[in-house]
Amino acid sequence: MMERIRRQILQALFRESMSVYRLIDEQDASLPEFFELLQQMESEGLIAVEDGKVRLTEKGIEVCESLGLKKIGRFECKCCGGTGYEINEFFQEVMKEYAKIAEERPEAIEKYDQGFISLDGVIRRVEFVYERGDLLKTKIFVVGDDDLFSLASALTGMPEKVFVIDIDERLIDFINKKADEYGLPVEAEVYDVQQAFPDELKKKFDVFVTDPVETIPGIKLFLSRGVSTLKGVGCSGYFGLTTLEASRKKWFEIQMMIHEMGFVITDMRRKFNVYPQEEKNFFRFQEKLPIVKKLGVGIDYNWYKSTLYRIEAVKEPKPLVEGEMIIDEKVYKDEESWATPY
Amino acid sequence: MMERIRRQILQALFRESMSVYRLIDEQDASLPEFFELLQQMESEGLIAVEDGKVRLTEKGIEVCESLGLKKIGRFECKCCGGTGYEINEFFQEVMKEYAKIAEERPEAIEKYDQGFISLDGVIRRVEFVYERGDLLKTKIFVVGDDDLFSLASALTGMPEKVFVIDIDERLIDFINKKADEYGLPVEAEVYDVQQAFPDELKKKFDVFVTDPVETIPGIKLFLSRGVSTLKGVGCSGYFGLTTLEASRKKWFEIQMMIHEMGFVITDMRRKFNVYPQEEKNFFRFQEKLPIVKKLGVGIDYNWYKSTLYRIEAVKEPKPLVEGEMIIDEKVYKDEESWATPY
Repeated sequence: MMERIRRQILQALFRESMSVYRLIDEQDASLPEFFELLQQMESEGLIAVEDGKVRLTEKGIEVCESLGLKKIGRFECKCCGGTGYEINEFFQEVMKEYAKIAEERPEAIEKYDQGFISLDGVIRRVEFVYERGDLLKTKIFVVGDDDLFSLASALTGMPEKVFVIDIDERLIDFINKKADEYGLPVEAEVYDVQQAFPDELKKKFDVFVTDPVETIPGIKLFLSRGVSTLKGVGCSGYFGLTTLEASRKKWFEIQMMIHEMGFVITDMRRKFNVYPQEEKNFFRFQEKLPIVKKLGVGIDYNWYKSTLYRIEAVKEPKPLVEGEMIIDEKVYKDEESWATPY
Repeated sequence: MMERIRRQILQALFRESMSVYRLIDEQDASLPEFFELLQQMESEGLIAVEDGKVRLTEKGIEVCESLGLKKIGRFECKCCGGTGYEINEFFQEVMKEYAKIAEERPEAIEKYDQGFISLDGVIRRVEFVYERGDLLKTKIFVVGDDDLFSLASALTGMPEKVFVIDIDERLIDFINKKADEYGLPVEAEVYDVQQAFPDELKKKFDVFVTDPVETIPGIKLFLSRGVSTLKGVGCSGYFGLTTLEASRKKWFEIQMMIHEMGFVITDMRRKFNVYPQEEKNFFRFQEKLPIVKKLGVGIDYNWYKSTLYRIEAVKEPKPLVEGEMIIDEKVYKDEESWATPY
């Protein structure tokens, strides 16, 4: 945990020196933790405090440079009092490269419940992970990567390693090919989440990212696999969850699971992830109710959005599913999954 | 719960007719619930579906007008892909009136741990409550009202009733005086949360709002009092919580409490509430650590922000504290409450 806060502080100070008060706002720790860390970083000779301003020392700058840090501006949106995330200059550049790659990606396949977030949605997610201090020099595990989050995050030049598993061989091949082409530290392997992970993937990562199918067994499985890859306390997970295919009761159960696995929820941003309309157009409303039969027109709106969750381990992470777990169809749909194809 | 979704649908359609897909995005229910409700509203003669568009019937328009609905535009921020909240025309008007009132409010007093959110922060909070369908024709209970949320929300003309309790008589008098002056359905009463509420306040409200002191006993008490005022399943609570005075372990405990009381967390928006710098300038860093002694300069940044939580009852709401609970100083501070005055 405090390693993450240290990264947040370095990220901020490498951009510019600033008052302690402003620095407080650039990091996620509580005040006692923050000031203890600041004191520690001062005694390590990384920072200096003068006239209430904190700056990096020469040694601090060297450390930042050796970590591959870049001067990245803030991206809190100026139009709405910082309640939203704009895409700043640095991440615009990342998005350009990412968009080029994404154009060539294999088409989504219904049977795998694929569907991907909009380009800028993926970049905002990367920004959010960066802002939390979860991107720089971290090892990230991605469970299912329709969105090519692996490539988007690696294009920042920051993660030490991104490891992807996905059931779709075409996608795995594509990711490996692009990683190679762009020289990115990304490695992808075909894997079905129903199979337990081999030991070499367990307890090796700092962060996991996934967009689970939205059934209880499915979420339990996806989150458990993600959780099983994390090193320990302070590690975090990011995932999307809709209100459309998951009712409040399901959310309640999921939140209980999260706690049971030893995690606190640190963020839940409604509608942070938008699935472009062309992606989720195979849904099954038509059969359901008379009123829906009257629709009869094309989709004119990006209606499928999800909430971005961030969870962080406050105890030793404990996956609820450890071994193999075959759940077939039940993983992919239940009575609430109206937008999920057969 | 479905009453809330109904309000969200009416709010959207009273503004304009729209495609079903867009309407999905204007409400919080799952797809099965949404379509069932749509069907029900159609059979009640409130809405009509034609060519995939949903519109209000004449009867529907009458109902909206009798509810005092207004044509309110969306306020998702256009600069950041809708990830933030701008203040739209309608709420700008509300803010103007609110700002006039807030200018005259009694000064914050240290002993009550008072401190208020920025004006636009309060208005954004009102927007968020409105967006959730929790404002129109609802009864709102406010536990502690430094922010004058009661007056801000009532200035929209939407709540049926806002009831405020606060320990500070000056504040209560001020709120009652302004409510009277502006003809608002707001009622305020002096009350210490340590005392159990009288029966006439219990199980009477749809929504509670509070900004608890950030100690475990304090939060347990404030949330319990709020929860005790709610009618039942589907009712909701809004409160702010910082990462500055509440570590992840404390958050974990708080989230467990929320579940124990029968609630799911539906939203957690980091840094949604900003306390202007002049408000939290009595904090006690100076005594804590050598590094802090070096600060020695004025505060130049709004560093005190909190996460806005929204919780919703999925079971019969069950307050953890029922009777009187005297906790004195422990309510107001613990080893993490560095920004809270004595």
